[in-house]
Amino acid sequence: MRKIHVIGIGAGDPEQLTLQAVRALRDTDVFFLLDKGEVKADLTDLRREMLAAHVPEGTYRVVEARDPERDRRAGGSAYSPAVGDWRSARADIYERLIGRELGEDECGAFLVWGDPALYDSTLAILQEVLGRGAVAFEYDVVPGISSVSALVARHRTGLNRVARPVQITTGRRLAEGFPEGVDDVVVMLDAHQTFRQYADEDIDIYWGAYIGTPDEILASGPIAETAPRIERLRTEARQRKGWIMDTYLLRRHPRNDARED
Amino acid sequence: MRKIHVIGIGAGDPEQLTLQAVRALRDTDVFFLLDKGEVKADLTDLRREMLAAHVPEGTYRVVEARDPERDRRAGGSAYSPAVGDWRSARADIYERLIGRELGEDECGAFLVWGDPALYDSTLAILQEVLGRGAVAFEYDVVPGISSVSALVARHRTGLNRVARPVQITTGRRLAEGFPEGVDDVVVMLDAHQTFRQYADEDIDIYWGAYIGTPDEILASGPIAETAPRIERLRTEARQRKGWIMDTYLLRRHPRNDARED
Repeated sequence: MRKIHVIGIGAGDPEQLTLQAVRALRDTDVFFLLDKGEVKADLTDLRREMLAAHVPEGTYRVVEARDPERDRRAGGSAYSPAVGDWRSARADIYERLIGRELGEDECGAFLVWGDPALYDSTLAILQEVLGRGAVAFEYDVVPGISSVSALVARHRTGLNRVARPVQITTGRRLAEGFPEGVDDVVVMLDAHQTFRQYADEDIDIYWGAYIGTPDEILASGPIAETAPRIERLRTEARQRKGWIMDTYLLRRHPRNDARED
Repeated sequence: MRKIHVIGIGAGDPEQLTLQAVRALRDTDVFFLLDKGEVKADLTDLRREMLAAHVPEGTYRVVEARDPERDRRAGGSAYSPAVGDWRSARADIYERLIGRELGEDECGAFLVWGDPALYDSTLAILQEVLGRGAVAFEYDVVPGISSVSALVARHRTGLNRVARPVQITTGRRLAEGFPEGVDDVVVMLDAHQTFRQYADEDIDIYWGAYIGTPDEILASGPIAETAPRIERLRTEARQRKGWIMDTYLLRRHPRNDARED
């Protein structure tokens, strides 16, 4: 039976690999590296360096493939059908990779930045491939340090305040309004710096880009004064590197402090 | 200048240590192990085993101390003052430990289960100690695999569904109502199996206890049929071991599926 590891490899710092992840890497015959079709050669290189650092040469193969382009023009309620088509196109690729490149008794692996549980579609795609029934395999998941954990560690703060909830959401959702019932919100996948929309509220922002890599940039403070600085840093970095991966925590000072310690 | 690492050591599986955590362990002169005053000798032993496995003998000291008892009788809006007193009592202990047990040029460490960013007070306490000004030190944070990440990895599912948010909250909060605006909710610190309150809703539960340890127990399925099984497993395990650490994800099937893929 074919086996597949879905391995969380941390948010960018190769030292964020867990011992369990290193063991899974060493157990793998074939690594599937999918390139997003954007300028992310840096990220593919970083994964190849991780393999070189932790797995004896000659014990594994690397198969690179190209992810299908996602139709990002679709917005609002049309978002999900576009995601559905895209996922189906990815499932075609994964099915072919597993069927053609992985021997019957071999172990393959997908390396996922951060934690496979957060805003990553690898698990859903593998489930779709299995559901189709054309290739059979077992799979397991190795959790990783998410960019969310890495962000707040670098800012030396917590995700939640005492006895209070935290929500993790997307830039698109935040654009629709500050989430109900929470004052601590982590925002991922925000290409539009949606935090600017809340610049007149009593909110602190903890922002980071390329967290855990030599290019790491951090900024934090009251959103009104920090937002322009982040905009500037973000634009400069994007021009310099050609891509950006960033995330942030918004911490609102609640009007009613009864539950705050 | 004294230095302190706050090290996330993962949810229970010693292999969940990151390479960065191992490096920080080896860099440490004095480990402060705080015992909760409950029957958690198992957890102290597990931390001592981690040290023995990763740090050369004779290169470090271990200082055990007892955490003050927390007044858990206080409920509702009285929750936070009780937490405040408790935190202040802990700050007294941390201040004394750092001042007396750590030499001026030494490095100390607090080992935190899971991720120091989630429902852990170590960072807030260190900030309080620094604010008092009696002892000075630098500190950094090493992120860890949270019980949240470990839970969903074992269930081989994600935290969020496509383009949707996830909330992490407490049993106490869940008892007040299902959070607004989210259908995926992770619940921590729930001593009362609050999920039973939602047994007549169309919700799946993914539950786990002692995740990543040899005692691990998992259960998942529609809440109506899974809740009684979890109750039974939880009661048996608690009797057998004397304590339990569990967490769960509630995944509600939304009535309006427009955003679901």
